[in-house]
Amino acid sequence: MKKYLVEFIGTFVLVMTIGMTVIGTGAGALAPLAIGSALMIMVYAGGHVSGGHYNPAVTLAVWLRGRCSAADVVPYWISQILGALAAASVVLFLKGDAVATPADLKVAPALLAEFIGTFALAYVVLNVATSKNTAGNSNYGLAIGFTVMVMAFALGGVSGGAFNPAVATGITVMHLEKVANLWIYLAGDLAAGALAALTFKFINPEDK
Amino acid sequence: MKKYLVEFIGTFVLVMTIGMTVIGTGAGALAPLAIGSALMIMVYAGGHVSGGHYNPAVTLAVWLRGRCSAADVVPYWISQILGALAAASVVLFLKGDAVATPADLKVAPALLAEFIGTFALAYVVLNVATSKNTAGNSNYGLAIGFTVMVMAFALGGVSGGAFNPAVATGITVMHLEKVANLWIYLAGDLAAGALAALTFKFINPEDK
Amino acid sequence: MKKYLVEFIGTFVLVMTIGMTVIGTGAGALAPLAIGSALMIMVYAGGHVSGGHYNPAVTLAVWLRGRCSAADVVPYWISQILGALAAASVVLFLKGDAVATPADLKVAPALLAEFIGTFALAYVVLNVATSKNTAGNSNYGLAIGFTVMVMAFALGGVSGGAFNPAVATGITVMHLEKVANLWIYLAGDLAAGALAALTFKFINPEDK
Amino acid sequence: MKKYLVEFIGTFVLVMTIGMTVIGTGAGALAPLAIGSALMIMVYAGGHVSGGHYNPAVTLAVWLRGRCSAADVVPYWISQILGALAAASVVLFLKGDAVATPADLKVAPALLAEFIGTFALAYVVLNVATSKNTAGNSNYGLAIGFTVMVMAFALGGVSGGAFNPAVATGITVMHLEKVANLWIYLAGDLAAGALAALTFKFINPEDK
Repeated sequence: MKKYLVEFIGTFVLVMTIGMTVIGTGAGALAPLAIGSALMIMVYAGGHVSGGHYNPAVTLAVWLRGRCSAADVVPYWISQILGALAAASVVLFLKGDAVATPADLKVAPALLAEFIGTFALAYVVLNVATSKNTAGNSNYGLAIGFTVMVMAFALGGVSGGAFNPAVATGITVMHLEKVANLWIYLAGDLAAGALAALTFKFINPEDK
Repeated sequence: MKKYLVEFIGTFVLVMTIGMTVIGTGAGALAPLAIGSALMIMVYAGGHVSGGHYNPAVTLAVWLRGRCSAADVVPYWISQILGALAAASVVLFLKGDAVATPADLKVAPALLAEFIGTFALAYVVLNVATSKNTAGNSNYGLAIGFTVMVMAFALGGVSGGAFNPAVATGITVMHLEKVANLWIYLAGDLAAGALAALTFKFINPEDK
Repeated sequence: MKKYLVEFIGTFVLVMTIGMTVIGTGAGALAPLAIGSALMIMVYAGGHVSGGHYNPAVTLAVWLRGRCSAADVVPYWISQILGALAAASVVLFLKGDAVATPADLKVAPALLAEFIGTFALAYVVLNVATSKNTAGNSNYGLAIGFTVMVMAFALGGVSGGAFNPAVATGITVMHLEKVANLWIYLAGDLAAGALAALTFKFINPEDK
Repeated sequence: MKKYLVEFIGTFVLVMTIGMTVIGTGAGALAPLAIGSALMIMVYAGGHVSGGHYNPAVTLAVWLRGRCSAADVVPYWISQILGALAAASVVLFLKGDAVATPADLKVAPALLAEFIGTFALAYVVLNVATSKNTAGNSNYGLAIGFTVMVMAFALGGVSGGAFNPAVATGITVMHLEKVANLWIYLAGDLAAGALAALTFKFINPEDK
């Protein structure tokens, strides 16, 4: 139960930061710094309890890599999505006046962007937070959080920059994305998480 | 005595940075980066002496969690508020020409924003700086300082973004907030610190 | 083989971030933060497998310092250049509409800027990632990635700020630099990598 | 000799970054991020050889605290000033067209700003890089470098934000400050370094 609460709190903080910095008068060009840092602080705070995923695609990747029990996968996903929905409610209350306009996405570029960004994120997570070679480091949160910052700067204009199905759900509820595009995030992000797990196993053959 | 001096210095640096970067020609959109980093550097510098709270709500949370002696709580609070007042005096001297206009706050959104931001801050502090599981890490200052940066980007436009009763006192003296709104910070921030301590105990039951 | 894949992935992420944040509506003035952080995250993710060079000049420096086998040098260079070319293809696809205008360079200032920036980068890499005195630290990725950020802010306007022959190849394919100027990067960057290795040996005489 | 070379290189990189990001079309509002990070990377790269001072006021503070031999003080100062002069020459060459206008300073506010900023810097250096309690941490460079970033954001508009007599020399040669104001930096910065050493001894009485 405590792991699920930690996943709920972390995803809440991440999605609330996205909504508050992107809608209306938010953080402007600096929003990716705020968003990536929101993930960083929650990874540092909750990683020792739940692993600090806050992202169904990361949970999938960590499970495939063998560092998340099968029984935890669905409860993690539910906690993450509930955290995103709670955050969306808070954002809609606090940003009452501001109206978000859903971005227009082109399917192929958006799928590619989500795939690349989520692959990078899960690849970094597995290597800095689950590898025997890097155990005990103090940089895992910085590396993970700033991967989202980098990918939001690089690819946010193409796909909206979710790299996370729970975030995609939250920003759809906040009217930043269209319901009709939600499948792009689910398909692109989960496929990327799975490929990242395979890649990790290939480059770390001795690390079971 | 040395602990109180460290709390005074750290709160002074934090509140001086707020005043100098927010009033008049300051750091503009980058002010949250400067402010969060000010907290980070003081946590790294003074944490080994006083714990590096610089915030009455954090002192409350650390005391409830059992890592601050009851005899230290009030002297910490006094040191923090004196540091904030000293910083406000320096800012008023250095920014003599610039006039700060107190923000207009709506009570419910401001209370909610202060509560969320301070909860996140105290939750991060307790997990990265007082948990047995994360002992010895080098990221505690980065995580704590950047929590204030994230929350200032996300919620600063709603509540002014103090997340700290000593900061609230300092920015009121600098005319950035109205005296009539000071209770919002005291109530919201201290309640959030208390809830963060309860949350920490729930998710770390074995960590006494 | 796994080391070469890691070098390919890291250089891909670095060069893709450069193209996506610099061409058209990218990250504007914040591009150096995104680019330096892209290197940082890949160093943290892949350093334990390949050393995390992502840069032929760094591979040269690490080989001269004695921490990269001679048999790996050419395969590393090929992996890095292939990663850069793959990234350029993705950027050209995603930025289809935007047209990059090659920068006009003055030879002497550009050579000097590339030399200084790449010297700083290789000097930092050797000291934070291959020195016995700093072994086991958690800051190597931050130091290495932010060296590129600093040098891009300081010298990007003079030379385009590659500090990396693979990056130079990638940005030439993306039309950000002219083919006729490619030699500036090859000559300036490789010479700087070699001097950094000599400097490291001079200041760390006991570290073989 | 190797220690002096490291001090020369680090101060060169710091002062070159200042000149290139502040004069003409530099890094604009982001200059403090570049400058603080320049110090950070050089502290991480050279700290294990020379201590990574790059600042006569820091050398004074570290000597008073007992972690720098008396015989090294003057050679360190000379290396730092030579590094600053070399950087100023490079900046004047690369920024040939751009003209820097010396800032107009008011003596009392500038002295106070330099004193506060340099006190914070030396206080952080002594606590994160010379204290027994924090030995072995990986955050010393981040804390030290970002102190300069914070103080440049907060106080740069008042004093020019040198916090370092070698930097003050360099920016005077680059025409960013007037020769007649150089004494402000010497007096304010060295006095602050001395007070920081006394403060460190008071709050760490058992740490000889």
